[in-house]
Amino acid sequence: MSGPTVQPGSSVPGTAPPGVAVANARADRYLRAARRQPVDVTPVWFMRQAGRSLPEFRAVRRTASLMDITRDPALCAEVTLQPVRRLGVDAAILFADITTPLAGLGVAFDIRPGVGPVIERPIRAPADVGALRPFDVGAVDPLLEAIRLVRAEIPVPLIGFAGAPFTMACYLVEGGPSREFLRTRTLMRAEPATWAALMDRLVAMTVEYLSAQVAAGAQAVQLFDSWVGGLGPRDYERDVAPWMRRLFDALIPLGVPTTHFGVDTAGLLTLQAAAGGDVIGLDWRVTLTDGWRLVGDRAVQGNLDPSLLLGPFSEVADTTRWILDQAAGRPGHVFNLGHGVLPDTDPDDLRRLVDLVHDHPKPGSGP
Amino acid sequence: MSGPTVQPGSSVPGTAPPGVAVANARADRYLRAARRQPVDVTPVWFMRQAGRSLPEFRAVRRTASLMDITRDPALCAEVTLQPVRRLGVDAAILFADITTPLAGLGVAFDIRPGVGPVIERPIRAPADVGALRPFDVGAVDPLLEAIRLVRAEIPVPLIGFAGAPFTMACYLVEGGPSREFLRTRTLMRAEPATWAALMDRLVAMTVEYLSAQVAAGAQAVQLFDSWVGGLGPRDYERDVAPWMRRLFDALIPLGVPTTHFGVDTAGLLTLQAAAGGDVIGLDWRVTLTDGWRLVGDRAVQGNLDPSLLLGPFSEVADTTRWILDQAAGRPGHVFNLGHGVLPDTDPDDLRRLVDLVHDHPKPGSGP
Repeated sequence: MSGPTVQPGSSVPGTAPPGVAVANARADRYLRAARRQPVDVTPVWFMRQAGRSLPEFRAVRRTASLMDITRDPALCAEVTLQPVRRLGVDAAILFADITTPLAGLGVAFDIRPGVGPVIERPIRAPADVGALRPFDVGAVDPLLEAIRLVRAEIPVPLIGFAGAPFTMACYLVEGGPSREFLRTRTLMRAEPATWAALMDRLVAMTVEYLSAQVAAGAQAVQLFDSWVGGLGPRDYERDVAPWMRRLFDALIPLGVPTTHFGVDTAGLLTLQAAAGGDVIGLDWRVTLTDGWRLVGDRAVQGNLDPSLLLGPFSEVADTTRWILDQAAGRPGHVFNLGHGVLPDTDPDDLRRLVDLVHDHPKPGSGP
Repeated sequence: MSGPTVQPGSSVPGTAPPGVAVANARADRYLRAARRQPVDVTPVWFMRQAGRSLPEFRAVRRTASLMDITRDPALCAEVTLQPVRRLGVDAAILFADITTPLAGLGVAFDIRPGVGPVIERPIRAPADVGALRPFDVGAVDPLLEAIRLVRAEIPVPLIGFAGAPFTMACYLVEGGPSREFLRTRTLMRAEPATWAALMDRLVAMTVEYLSAQVAAGAQAVQLFDSWVGGLGPRDYERDVAPWMRRLFDALIPLGVPTTHFGVDTAGLLTLQAAAGGDVIGLDWRVTLTDGWRLVGDRAVQGNLDPSLLLGPFSEVADTTRWILDQAAGRPGHVFNLGHGVLPDTDPDDLRRLVDLVHDHPKPGSGP
């Protein structure tokens, strides 16, 4: 379980002369941790780090919708880079909406302010699945161009991402906001053939979408299975896990670290890890210790409750140290929130949190 | 782990002559299972078994609001008894809204259709807590009278209930519907003195409310901590568990089995069990096996995904058998859904589910 975090005499950046070390370490500590290699300090980035909590993002949004941003490579690259500049995080993540690739299937949808994505014609019957077009990766060309632009100037790795097939199916089947995804969960059980056809299409789309992101320059990818936590383990194992396994297997040839993230997954973590992913995301409802035990031989990412950042920073600091101490002496921890940054978060607190993670002593890394 | 479910030659109802056995067994199998004593068949009841899924309840609601029902002892008793008659469940649960006792603190609130409880003046400052009146149990007199009426004609035990203090605090602090209870979670951390004062008042109210229910005839009580699953283990341990412990300790002298239920609690179960409760509720997001391992030496209640009942009954049956098999050979399982009955559930399917649970062979109980 325990091991050195920096190999003495190795070529790990943290052992290089101080001036050089900082730049080099920031450049690859996220990728090293994702591969469970020793790092100088724990890497940190935040889900939804680009977005409403940043004043410079709000400035962009005064003249551009979310859709506009994802269709304008320069603007998309700019928004992706904003948190890297301001917060000092160790990775960037492509700015896009989880539903963006659905345009490539010919799905008509709109992102309504305060509501979220609304699908014009929800998918609830075999004919609806049949009507989906083969995925046209050209629909996400602006995002791929944004990836190239980001890579040209970024000091840290760029993470590509996609929604996981179950979560994408929730958007397509429900058609609009839902708390419990009852239509999706019922379709899955009542119409297994429709479900299989839909998941088959979504896996194919996701493989193609992420492969294109990596080809354009993304150095890692994360699958967001944001709504999977509503399922019990039996449903997950039968109706989701086989598709996740197929998806992760298809990503192996890309040669980049993959992260498998979900919310409300304390009872699913072992099954999720078995389905795939080099790094397993933990939300804040499980201790890092328990979560890591459940996923076994993988890296983990997490897991500060994002709502802590709405309260006193002393609580953020205490809980962050508690999390980091649980990861001490074991390579393979990427610090993150347990879910996305909340809109009312103060960016200065995020910056302080990054510094706190970086300053936290790593046992075994020397004085 | 394994043991006889019926002691040979004991006075367990299941061993009495068949004709008498059925009535007797139904009368106490819920209470026996809650105390981890052997039973003839697994007891079953459903959270929200009284309510919108029943036509006879809808008929009542055409002329009476939820508030009306909780203020009319005869009507409240009638609604409490409806599912016992129709579904053949092994326990009744008092029909009331979780917010009903707040009237006894002088809190003005309304239950709005499609919205839920809305508090006129949310509690967010020390003065708001100070303005709460000492709990006047007289405010729930109609419910206590309903308990007496139910006890006079019921063939099964009657479970009283209350919201757990954290969940009640969510209602009071948010003031209306909330998905993430961010105000509550922030208040808890930013204003610990206000939080402690509020929890102190809610524990006192809940002890008095449940004591009155037991004095009126309730034979068991259940605490619903419906929203606690939004908290991480560290928050739970510091800001919720001590109050739950105080509450459960105060209920011990009542001499009735207590159930501690929450939703989304796969990462909290061990802490919840340590805080108290003879029976620990499991939602469907954790296997019965894993959940039972986490709560240790207690009875468990659960844990069928309520959304299964919106799909084909074959899936309900398969998953129910899978759950019952996990509990085989170990006393202390009360079958239930992992959360409340969904409004679109067909009552005939609930009835079939009750029969299925009762007909499931219990290893060790003989031919």
